[in-house]
Amino acid sequence: MQDPTVSLRSFPTSLARLEYLENTCGIKLNNLKENLLEGDLGENIIGGITIPLGVAGPLSLSGLHAKGDYFIPFATTEGGLVASINRGCKAISESGGAHVFSDKVGTTRGPVFSVKSRNSGEALKKWINENTSKIKEASESTSKHLKFKKVDITPVASYVFMRFYFDTDSAMGMNMVTFATDAISKLIEANTEAKCISIAGNYDIDKKPAWLNFIEGRGFKAWGEVVIPQKVVRGTLKTTSEKIFEVWLSKCMIGSAMSGSIGFNAQISNIVAAFFAATGQDLAHVVDGSLGITIAKVVNEDLYLSVYIPSLLMGIVGGGTGRPTQNDAIKLTGVKSSDEAAEILVGAALAGELSLLASLAEGSLATAHKSLGRKK
Amino acid sequence: MQDPTVSLRSFPTSLARLEYLENTCGIKLNNLKENLLEGDLGENIIGGITIPLGVAGPLSLSGLHAKGDYFIPFATTEGGLVASINRGCKAISESGGAHVFSDKVGTTRGPVFSVKSRNSGEALKKWINENTSKIKEASESTSKHLKFKKVDITPVASYVFMRFYFDTDSAMGMNMVTFATDAISKLIEANTEAKCISIAGNYDIDKKPAWLNFIEGRGFKAWGEVVIPQKVVRGTLKTTSEKIFEVWLSKCMIGSAMSGSIGFNAQISNIVAAFFAATGQDLAHVVDGSLGITIAKVVNEDLYLSVYIPSLLMGIVGGGTGRPTQNDAIKLTGVKSSDEAAEILVGAALAGELSLLASLAEGSLATAHKSLGRKK
Amino acid sequence: MQDPTVSLRSFPTSLARLEYLENTCGIKLNNLKENLLEGDLGENIIGGITIPLGVAGPLSLSGLHAKGDYFIPFATTEGGLVASINRGCKAISESGGAHVFSDKVGTTRGPVFSVKSRNSGEALKKWINENTSKIKEASESTSKHLKFKKVDITPVASYVFMRFYFDTDSAMGMNMVTFATDAISKLIEANTEAKCISIAGNYDIDKKPAWLNFIEGRGFKAWGEVVIPQKVVRGTLKTTSEKIFEVWLSKCMIGSAMSGSIGFNAQISNIVAAFFAATGQDLAHVVDGSLGITIAKVVNEDLYLSVYIPSLLMGIVGGGTGRPTQNDAIKLTGVKSSDEAAEILVGAALAGELSLLASLAEGSLATAHKSLGRKK
Amino acid sequence: MQDPTVSLRSFPTSLARLEYLENTCGIKLNNLKENLLEGDLGENIIGGITIPLGVAGPLSLSGLHAKGDYFIPFATTEGGLVASINRGCKAISESGGAHVFSDKVGTTRGPVFSVKSRNSGEALKKWINENTSKIKEASESTSKHLKFKKVDITPVASYVFMRFYFDTDSAMGMNMVTFATDAISKLIEANTEAKCISIAGNYDIDKKPAWLNFIEGRGFKAWGEVVIPQKVVRGTLKTTSEKIFEVWLSKCMIGSAMSGSIGFNAQISNIVAAFFAATGQDLAHVVDGSLGITIAKVVNEDLYLSVYIPSLLMGIVGGGTGRPTQNDAIKLTGVKSSDEAAEILVGAALAGELSLLASLAEGSLATAHKSLGRKK
Repeated sequence: MQDPTVSLRSFPTSLARLEYLENTCGIKLNNLKENLLEGDLGENIIGGITIPLGVAGPLSLSGLHAKGDYFIPFATTEGGLVASINRGCKAISESGGAHVFSDKVGTTRGPVFSVKSRNSGEALKKWINENTSKIKEASESTSKHLKFKKVDITPVASYVFMRFYFDTDSAMGMNMVTFATDAISKLIEANTEAKCISIAGNYDIDKKPAWLNFIEGRGFKAWGEVVIPQKVVRGTLKTTSEKIFEVWLSKCMIGSAMSGSIGFNAQISNIVAAFFAATGQDLAHVVDGSLGITIAKVVNEDLYLSVYIPSLLMGIVGGGTGRPTQNDAIKLTGVKSSDEAAEILVGAALAGELSLLASLAEGSLATAHKSLGRKK
Repeated sequence: MQDPTVSLRSFPTSLARLEYLENTCGIKLNNLKENLLEGDLGENIIGGITIPLGVAGPLSLSGLHAKGDYFIPFATTEGGLVASINRGCKAISESGGAHVFSDKVGTTRGPVFSVKSRNSGEALKKWINENTSKIKEASESTSKHLKFKKVDITPVASYVFMRFYFDTDSAMGMNMVTFATDAISKLIEANTEAKCISIAGNYDIDKKPAWLNFIEGRGFKAWGEVVIPQKVVRGTLKTTSEKIFEVWLSKCMIGSAMSGSIGFNAQISNIVAAFFAATGQDLAHVVDGSLGITIAKVVNEDLYLSVYIPSLLMGIVGGGTGRPTQNDAIKLTGVKSSDEAAEILVGAALAGELSLLASLAEGSLATAHKSLGRKK
Repeated sequence: MQDPTVSLRSFPTSLARLEYLENTCGIKLNNLKENLLEGDLGENIIGGITIPLGVAGPLSLSGLHAKGDYFIPFATTEGGLVASINRGCKAISESGGAHVFSDKVGTTRGPVFSVKSRNSGEALKKWINENTSKIKEASESTSKHLKFKKVDITPVASYVFMRFYFDTDSAMGMNMVTFATDAISKLIEANTEAKCISIAGNYDIDKKPAWLNFIEGRGFKAWGEVVIPQKVVRGTLKTTSEKIFEVWLSKCMIGSAMSGSIGFNAQISNIVAAFFAATGQDLAHVVDGSLGITIAKVVNEDLYLSVYIPSLLMGIVGGGTGRPTQNDAIKLTGVKSSDEAAEILVGAALAGELSLLASLAEGSLATAHKSLGRKK
Repeated sequence: MQDPTVSLRSFPTSLARLEYLENTCGIKLNNLKENLLEGDLGENIIGGITIPLGVAGPLSLSGLHAKGDYFIPFATTEGGLVASINRGCKAISESGGAHVFSDKVGTTRGPVFSVKSRNSGEALKKWINENTSKIKEASESTSKHLKFKKVDITPVASYVFMRFYFDTDSAMGMNMVTFATDAISKLIEANTEAKCISIAGNYDIDKKPAWLNFIEGRGFKAWGEVVIPQKVVRGTLKTTSEKIFEVWLSKCMIGSAMSGSIGFNAQISNIVAAFFAATGQDLAHVVDGSLGITIAKVVNEDLYLSVYIPSLLMGIVGGGTGRPTQNDAIKLTGVKSSDEAAEILVGAALAGELSLLASLAEGSLATAHKSLGRKK
């Protein structure tokens, strides 16, 4: 096919790479050509793909950080999703708004070390616990934006798994915590006989669905809850609290149990994915953000609905958040901290759960998707 | 804040919505304004966000559907990711290419029905199993692109959970299977006393991490494997097979076990997320695609590496695949079917695993991220 | 301590071993001495331990196999357990009895084979699927009590995991299926290039909690359900249906979800353990039997309660069922098949769930344990 | 069948109950009749079932609490099990003994409370954390053997899940922690607006397999490790370190991963079940004790083997440990504390893993079970 002596990396610009690919493959990539990015990002970049950006809201929230009415951006190609979230936002706002909460657990990096024996592992654990000030110092020397929070240590066989938690300020901070953990690893290797096998030993655990993240939390833990008066349930949501409860119980609890799932919810990942795409988060962290439990109750005939997401990895600076359109999307939200961002996201997730559960209860999911099938 | 009597939906164009938001929030969204989409997609769309698109390859593959050298597109804001995958592609191609395989299990929709008792549940199960030809007919009447494959039925208490599998041709087909299942549900309700509680009862199970999908498969099951001669391990990957094995064992197997994870791998979700974003897949399906197991072995001093992803939901027509830039990205791959697309994705995942495991083994992860930190 | 040249195995009788231990350790084991077993079982047996045997019932059941009123034996040292089950039996019988069902999925053995590549794995899978009649013949030649049912095959990397299901008649049959699988393995090795790494590759999966057993079933799947009229709920159970529902929802569903559990129930394992000990089952199979989901509903003001146990490994002949006292315990139940035994066990589990949930709802658990603390 | 007006509970002795059952069912229960227990335990007890008790050892251990050579009792009806453990003990002792460790995490009780909202849940969490001295006092007033250790609190929706950890001295202490938690619950209800829904809310989580117990530990965490020189591997175990490693990797790690298991081991539950039956532990806690991970390595040509069991619920006083034969079995071990008992159990589990993995590696499992099939 292509001349094997030529590498994409040898071209100086996206356009040159694009045209090389067009020539090599004998195709025309006109849409990409019209979507070249400014400057050159290196790494074989040939342009940009564009995802439609919709806005839901205003969503009325009352939280530790989020207070007020928010417009929330969602980048998605799934027809009907923004409309669905928007309906949920409307119902929540009509009900006086949702309560939201975030708890910054911290971004984790989890190296695995090799030691001689379980005894040596215990000794290593002891050394670390007695030298947290040195560990704090070594890790915090790598960035002024990073604070060491704590470490969990689990020795098993001749391995020692560690899970370092860091406050990475307004950034999600995965790179920051890698550098910090690298410094910690060097400190440990210099002072003990332990050897770092891998700076990332899946005890972080990053971008894989895992109970450790559900139970301990990672990034942000976030909660949202709302009481929807029966008038709004019947009006805006076109169903009853009792029916929503029935769908929730059979689907989110029993259905998820029967499926061996870590997610006990209706569609949290949809809202996380679209918000992450809009605001420049790492899209593989949709996996961590898909964990979560939605809980419904009928109180009198009103509907109480709550969402808990234990592992939200996100920030408002760094990584993709600095990309031009993504940065505008963040600007649109008006959030001033990643804590506030986590709270509006969990509020939006609550809206999404509300709307989808109502749609399923009413039996309109198929119809809705037919009428909202997005025009391309 | 905003005039509550005005709704975003009342504006006829993206630009009008965007300017309304600018006025209401008192901000300027210049980057989004420069990125308006052609036409109007409705649903509160105000423009598009752009994600840098990089290309890895050529990757030499030999599969049931994928045969030859492929350029593979990845949309990501994570600096270093495309370079990392590209290094893996290089190592694989230098080793004579990877073997890949895909098995189209089918897209599932899993409704939950209510019956009077476990006895009635058994009767319903019997009715369905005796009337699969009617079910086939009813479901296939909803689309000429859809074929009914099979159904798994699990009665529990007064619930009956079903999992219908459909071949949706070249599309991922989530909407298609919803319409088909809607038709089936109506057929069941017309012929039995069972009542559909929810057309989607989390026995699908869609967009939540779940053992049911790992064990039974969903969408595509896909496998990839390669033998990397020690010369390539030492040259291109700058480490040894033994060290990669050691990292794999302690991280992907023991670390994942200690974390209660459904994913026994290094970074499959990264590759799935970036490929899905590039090619217009549903980004919440990154969750399903994050399941998977990577297995390493040292054979003589060569490295055998294998990846198995049991739940890949993807297509090459429909949904976001029709968006202009995403369509170009698919065109770039040259694939002719979703089966072929699944095979190049699993091949790319293999490249990603190879490169990250090598980087961890060599101890260069932190360094690599420092030097490849993407320019914005 | 002891003379290292002397081994317990060198003594011809339990008594001789017991006295050797008494002498070596300088202790008196009078209670064991009074509990010597008849004959000599070998294997360093020095006597027998005795567990109190209680009886609950009569429990009124209507099942595929179990029909009528049953006395059910439980061997346990936990004070209050038999009384608790007995109260549940009473409530069920007062409500007209429970419906029970068992489905003999089959005892599994799951070897793991080594092949050259994923391609060879596919070939092996094909060979097996095309030669099931030979596999049936080879396996059934090992015992007249064993029937081959089916096989599930999952190739991954250079491994092929298999899960053979056998009908082992009235026995639990773990040894039987080991011999049968040994014969199959030899057949496979003689006809293909695959090599059996381990005749038990944890794809059985035996005596470890696992989603594979929950989802596919193992041994028996068993269901029980009952409607308890509010009069009985208030009278015998001293609480209300609504309160039981509230405890069930928060404990068995939400609490189990928050804990990352495979068991969504109150105390199924208690009933399984005590019944298994009474009837000579393999006590490590309590692990498999602990999987299960209990579901409650309030129907009008009556209580609907249901139990589903997907992985009951048990029999009425073979293994410990032939021990004298255990055999009497089986005789007491009057069951004629292992299917019937599985049904009375699931009925008893239903009684146990009912009673404990009621006790928790009423707030009497602590009090009950104080008053029922068993005399030693 | 029986006269419904007569209840088993109305008879004053075991013999009277037994004879009533014989008459009612028209059967003879001679073996049980010969096995009547002294005194009357109430609760419908009709006698005792007897399980053969074998002894393995001496097993040479070096731990925090266990130091020296131990004979270890196992009550089981599984032919071959004691012989298998004994072989493992022999190999370990020939290798100079195993290192063992136990860490008393504490027995947990996990109530679930109802509050008005997530905000109230946070307030409740705060109240508890600020009043741990009162909680300590209230709980410790219920028993002089109990010490409050710590509490983990997780609010979700309008529920608050708590997990109280207690040191229960030499007892497993499940009843003790129930009484203590009852006192705490009353304290909380008296001082806050929270209401206890269930004193046991499955956040304990008791007798169900769950990741929470694997990750946080429950009862005792226990580790064991040993290096078996190749001479012993070849001699006593009749195989090679490399083969054992291969079986371990494919079975305990990859096989367990493929099965969605919480147990990454060969047969830990067998050893736990037989030791628990012998020493009067609660047999439903075999479920908790089945969690665990075995890890093998080849070091030069020697075999390094390690076992980690995170959730061992056991004691040496209280409950069934006081039964005559069980008490003798404990006496035989010579242990002076439950910590020491946990260490000899994990040492025995290591022996069991070693022996079974060797047997599988050598291909002798089927043969061994044939020859060791126990005489009844």
